[in-house]
Amino acid sequence: MQDSRTELSSLGEFGLIDRLTAAVELVNPSSIQGIGDDAAVIDPQGQMQVVTTDMLVEGVHFDLGYVPLKHLGYKAMIVNFSDVYAMNATPKQVTVAIAISNRFSLEAVDELYAGMLTACHAHGVDLVGGDTTSSTSGLVLSITAIGTAKKEDIVYRHGAKEGDLLVVSGDLGGAFMGLQVLEREKAVFKQDPNVQPDLAGFDYILERQLKPEARRDVISMFKEMNLKPTAMIDISDGLASEALHIARRSGLGVKLYEEKFPLDPVTVSTAHDFNLDPTTCALNGGEDYELLFTIAQRDHDKVKGSPHFTIVGHMTDAASGYQLVDRQGGQHPLKAQGWDALLKK
Amino acid sequence: MQDSRTELSSLGEFGLIDRLTAAVELVNPSSIQGIGDDAAVIDPQGQMQVVTTDMLVEGVHFDLGYVPLKHLGYKAMIVNFSDVYAMNATPKQVTVAIAISNRFSLEAVDELYAGMLTACHAHGVDLVGGDTTSSTSGLVLSITAIGTAKKEDIVYRHGAKEGDLLVVSGDLGGAFMGLQVLEREKAVFKQDPNVQPDLAGFDYILERQLKPEARRDVISMFKEMNLKPTAMIDISDGLASEALHIARRSGLGVKLYEEKFPLDPVTVSTAHDFNLDPTTCALNGGEDYELLFTIAQRDHDKVKGSPHFTIVGHMTDAASGYQLVDRQGGQHPLKAQGWDALLKK
Repeated sequence: MQDSRTELSSLGEFGLIDRLTAAVELVNPSSIQGIGDDAAVIDPQGQMQVVTTDMLVEGVHFDLGYVPLKHLGYKAMIVNFSDVYAMNATPKQVTVAIAISNRFSLEAVDELYAGMLTACHAHGVDLVGGDTTSSTSGLVLSITAIGTAKKEDIVYRHGAKEGDLLVVSGDLGGAFMGLQVLEREKAVFKQDPNVQPDLAGFDYILERQLKPEARRDVISMFKEMNLKPTAMIDISDGLASEALHIARRSGLGVKLYEEKFPLDPVTVSTAHDFNLDPTTCALNGGEDYELLFTIAQRDHDKVKGSPHFTIVGHMTDAASGYQLVDRQGGQHPLKAQGWDALLKK
Repeated sequence: MQDSRTELSSLGEFGLIDRLTAAVELVNPSSIQGIGDDAAVIDPQGQMQVVTTDMLVEGVHFDLGYVPLKHLGYKAMIVNFSDVYAMNATPKQVTVAIAISNRFSLEAVDELYAGMLTACHAHGVDLVGGDTTSSTSGLVLSITAIGTAKKEDIVYRHGAKEGDLLVVSGDLGGAFMGLQVLEREKAVFKQDPNVQPDLAGFDYILERQLKPEARRDVISMFKEMNLKPTAMIDISDGLASEALHIARRSGLGVKLYEEKFPLDPVTVSTAHDFNLDPTTCALNGGEDYELLFTIAQRDHDKVKGSPHFTIVGHMTDAASGYQLVDRQGGQHPLKAQGWDALLKK
């Protein structure tokens, strides 16, 4: 970030919008009209449209004490793109509504937009509209992403069948452990601002927290593998919560096997440092933005041995309920506890 | 509102979402999947899609001291629908992101949603998705509306031609004067809470402020009249600002005639009470959510004599600039001043 500070009030609302949108280019042929009219215009080109909205509130979803604005802008886009991929669709357009107080400078807002546009560029998405307004206190971002898919390709949460395998991309719990490291260093810094943050060795989990990726590559792999999941969801609230969503929406039970959970070594060692159970972090940590999906057993060979996918369980009949099988073979009821319960332990 | 108070925390996020969305029904065949998955799914049915986003922030856009939550919910939808109509399109789906602090009860949130759903019902729009999150302070609403139109029917801001007539629906300045009355009574109430607000005789302008309408009927009339405007915008920031948008986007000048401005008698008399010029209120007051559009001169007969439309000026060549002609025939440069400048006088 530059050292100079330009007050937002010196530009006015329209000046700010002109400045922020100067760098915006439309790349998708479906983006007919972008910023600059009462509404954006999109040509669906014969495809279905999927629409998702996420709101990020300062002090609730992010802490600008350790999240750079550029990373925040990037992540705000990624969480929306992830929802689109979770429908087996491709994000194409996005609108951004921002409420921002005058404690932010123009240079700070530039950083935020730079992060958003970097994410858009990486995922081939056009920023086509939005709203910029003042806020009485913190920063609030509300993003709506619009994607396309062929009707027959769309994957819902409710399509899982009994006996389907439950598969997850990537690894789990890293974003949560990255947050714990950031929170610890913030607490240390508060006590003594002369202490430099000790973040060495935590690169992977810090990136999982600060610069998560949405699994565009997984959607591409599905097409190459000629694989259509029967149900899918992205992991924003933790494996437990998302597995329960698929089970409930599909009218089924689910069984997860702890020994199968994909965990990065840094996630495991950091969890031990913090006296946390890595399994619990994977189940309840959230913000991994991996994809959790079910496939028919006949498609087992398509994911078997792939470094990108791990089979973590399977769908059962509804009467069998929601179960977690531990490493010793013991069964426990599967619950969505969320972060709060996790940290109270 | 009921007297009982249920804390939002007693429901949890998912309980709240279930409660709020229980009343949501999908009416449009184009709404394939609503709330309950990673994203909503829309079938465009061969039409273009238009998308608009507006964010409303407590303390900036509304004051819950005199705006009932039900009215706020209604208005939040209307301002978005108005943007869709301004494209000569029809709103079909909407997503709602809400950040809300624990000072609001469940009953209060129910009121807000009731207002939103009333507006959706009146305009045939489906609530298909959104996000509900906590806020550290005030209430923030971010709404994205999606509409449809045939490609050849869409009207942009930039389509006006030299010599086109500038036409406005309804009357102007009422919403602004309604706000002045509310602010005055709030100030009186602050000084002496025993004084009852004196709102008698101000019904029309109070409704213009608290329960504005989006001009769905005007879009229908265009179809019946076989009229396609050359350019269009909705009046959210005042006639001056919107006329300038059309002129600039179309690369033209514009001339407005003060004597033509449609003003309701209550707006005029209230403006005089407040020692304000009614013309200035129409030019800079905003929030009227009327439609401002241009038509070719050959279409003059289609709007002439209509009680719904008033010709307020015409488009000139760019070199002629932006002009306001007063009742005495004097010319003044047309500027978008906004509310702030208006109240400093």
